[in-house]
Amino acid sequence: MTDLLLRNVRPMGGPATDILVLDGRIAAPGPAPAGIPVEDGQGMLLLPGFVEGHTHLDKTTFHEADWLVNTVGPRIIDKIDHEREWRARTGHDAGAASLAMARAFLAAGTTRIRSHVDVDTEAGTRHVERVLETRAAMQGVQEIQIVAFPQSGVLGRQGTEAALDAALAMGADIVGGLDPCAIERDPVRHLDIVFGLAEKHAKPVDIHLHEQGSMGAFSLELILERTRALGMQGKVVVSHAFCLGDIPERERDALLVQMAALGVAIATTAPPSRPVPLVAPCLAAGLTIFGGNDGIRDTWTPYGSPDMLERAMLVGLRNNFRRDDEIALAFDCVSAAGAAGCGFTAYGLDAGARADLVLVEARSLAEAVVARPTRKLVVTGGRVVARDGELLV
Amino acid sequence: MTDLLLRNVRPMGGPATDILVLDGRIAAPGPAPAGIPVEDGQGMLLLPGFVEGHTHLDKTTFHEADWLVNTVGPRIIDKIDHEREWRARTGHDAGAASLAMARAFLAAGTTRIRSHVDVDTEAGTRHVERVLETRAAMQGVQEIQIVAFPQSGVLGRQGTEAALDAALAMGADIVGGLDPCAIERDPVRHLDIVFGLAEKHAKPVDIHLHEQGSMGAFSLELILERTRALGMQGKVVVSHAFCLGDIPERERDALLVQMAALGVAIATTAPPSRPVPLVAPCLAAGLTIFGGNDGIRDTWTPYGSPDMLERAMLVGLRNNFRRDDEIALAFDCVSAAGAAGCGFTAYGLDAGARADLVLVEARSLAEAVVARPTRKLVVTGGRVVARDGELLV
Ligand SMILES: [Zn+2]
Ligand SMILES: [Zn+2]
Repeated sequence: MTDLLLRNVRPMGGPATDILVLDGRIAAPGPAPAGIPVEDGQGMLLLPGFVEGHTHLDKTTFHEADWLVNTVGPRIIDKIDHEREWRARTGHDAGAASLAMARAFLAAGTTRIRSHVDVDTEAGTRHVERVLETRAAMQGVQEIQIVAFPQSGVLGRQGTEAALDAALAMGADIVGGLDPCAIERDPVRHLDIVFGLAEKHAKPVDIHLHEQGSMGAFSLELILERTRALGMQGKVVVSHAFCLGDIPERERDALLVQMAALGVAIATTAPPSRPVPLVAPCLAAGLTIFGGNDGIRDTWTPYGSPDMLERAMLVGLRNNFRRDDEIALAFDCVSAAGAAGCGFTAYGLDAGARADLVLVEARSLAEAVVARPTRKLVVTGGRVVARDGELLV
Repeated sequence: MTDLLLRNVRPMGGPATDILVLDGRIAAPGPAPAGIPVEDGQGMLLLPGFVEGHTHLDKTTFHEADWLVNTVGPRIIDKIDHEREWRARTGHDAGAASLAMARAFLAAGTTRIRSHVDVDTEAGTRHVERVLETRAAMQGVQEIQIVAFPQSGVLGRQGTEAALDAALAMGADIVGGLDPCAIERDPVRHLDIVFGLAEKHAKPVDIHLHEQGSMGAFSLELILERTRALGMQGKVVVSHAFCLGDIPERERDALLVQMAALGVAIATTAPPSRPVPLVAPCLAAGLTIFGGNDGIRDTWTPYGSPDMLERAMLVGLRNNFRRDDEIALAFDCVSAAGAAGCGFTAYGLDAGARADLVLVEARSLAEAVVARPTRKLVVTGGRVVARDGELLV
């Protein structure tokens, strides 16, 4: 079923209207063909399917019978080493994990996901293979991008580069990277490998940059230099970019202007506990900034939720967005800006877009973000895939 | 009904047991009287009724038919002036507002609330009178403390002190105060009035202190001096205390030690967008720190929720609490620490405590905080007051 007439809905909280879907795409307003399936929207708020711009589908314990008690140490390296050891010891199944998580996202209205997936010398491309299976299982109802992500670093573990190369060859969409100074200890060599793989496979880049302050800004500059030199404008995402939250505003704004000129986007989880790139200065510089959970209930963190309205709320809280027009910017981070930053096409509520639609009972867009009501209806490509928060597929 | 046998529950996520309630209180384990009402807990997680330590029941638009579009300016004074004008213009009814909000809190498992209630020269004691009605309506199922709160300041508006005095005489429990330097412009005069009213009525104090940096620390010192001079140890709460998030750690720790010695507690909303007093150094100093929403869907902010597990999650995120033992500290902020800080008595899950109980489907305390599952059962004083998130009273 890819034709649909959605009656009496309020797109983004605006006036009530009907939405005609033909062949899985939103059609220009006009007479509906006879016999088309009809859904009564009952005046509910209509939103585009949400975009999860940065998560780790392969790591989650969301689907597991036992609660994972977290006793991990505070440093990033504690978490990396503990996770790799835990995955090997428990045989944690990235296939079951990613499928359960992807389905939970879909039930809550998310129809496009960018997932980083671990590639290392112990797991090789095993996790990527399993998430590729999840991607195939979800085909037609949810679009999943896979980042081949060297979570344990590239330089310290002989064979990681070859594993990344293999992951990209078998279908990973994007080359990942990780803290070129703080973890890799050799920023030029790390970035040359990452951008070298991107060039070889003609694929974009998405680099985890947790580094703060002037060190993070230095790594960011090296990323921008390579983006320019390789003509990769519009093909690079920097995830976290915490340094843009704690360097002096003048330096920050200079970097934002360069990033905007190179089409380098930022993925943020908007964590409450540390300095982060704020949305307003990014938008003022013309930059795309979008949202994601990062890991959800994994060995790193017990937090996170497949509900991207909750992530929008956290972006709003982190940025002190209180006015309705500001909260719309937080929603943009989990919808149109996410699509733009990740390169998901045919996105939105205009004619021609793929009919990925979410209905909720809310009086305004801001209410949808702060109250996160049940998803009454989720549609992908014109097909009803969930009702009242429950998947039908 | 104040006797109850709650079978097969896991207190705080521990081993399954039965809880016997006699005459509204948790009894020592032992044989249950014949004919006692029984609830099957089905192995669910048992928590004590939650404590909302800082909210504004009188301000909310939670119950209103129309969504309140927020277009208010960024400064505190913008919000204060806008709110007072809006309340006068719309005739916003603090009675209906506070009752709807209190009931929503109860449905989500909160059985004790400290609410600040505006007192000013335009409204006089009108809002306090209406929240006193709500308190009376909720008597027996929820305990509500009322802070007579000079939201528009005391010194700039002749008659506010008399209105506060009247509010305390008619039943408000606690004397409120507000930014002695930044808003009142005369910290000594403001605090002398606040503590003078406290002395006159023999009631505790709870002061909103948004002031940052050394100015906030100065106001805090003046509060501590008066606490000591008047023998008000254990009777003073400082709400927000943002200064403790941005002064140098050595100065902060010196203040925390003084506060702990005087039994001065901190109420925090743990906002993601600004420096705040962190939980760990407060606990290290022996201080009580507890959580609250502040306003919920009012003219100040569209955020907030009557779900105190969500506030615990936000406290956890703000403090970067990831380990299960850390998340237990975040839960403590909306339970035992809240009761201690606000002076709610007979609190907890031990024998002798008032039987205020919440059942949720969760494998651990940490899961209850991060997943915030439906409240399957809420009990106050041994009486079942809500099931599956719906009030029965
Ligand atoms: Zn990540
Ligand atoms: Zn307040």
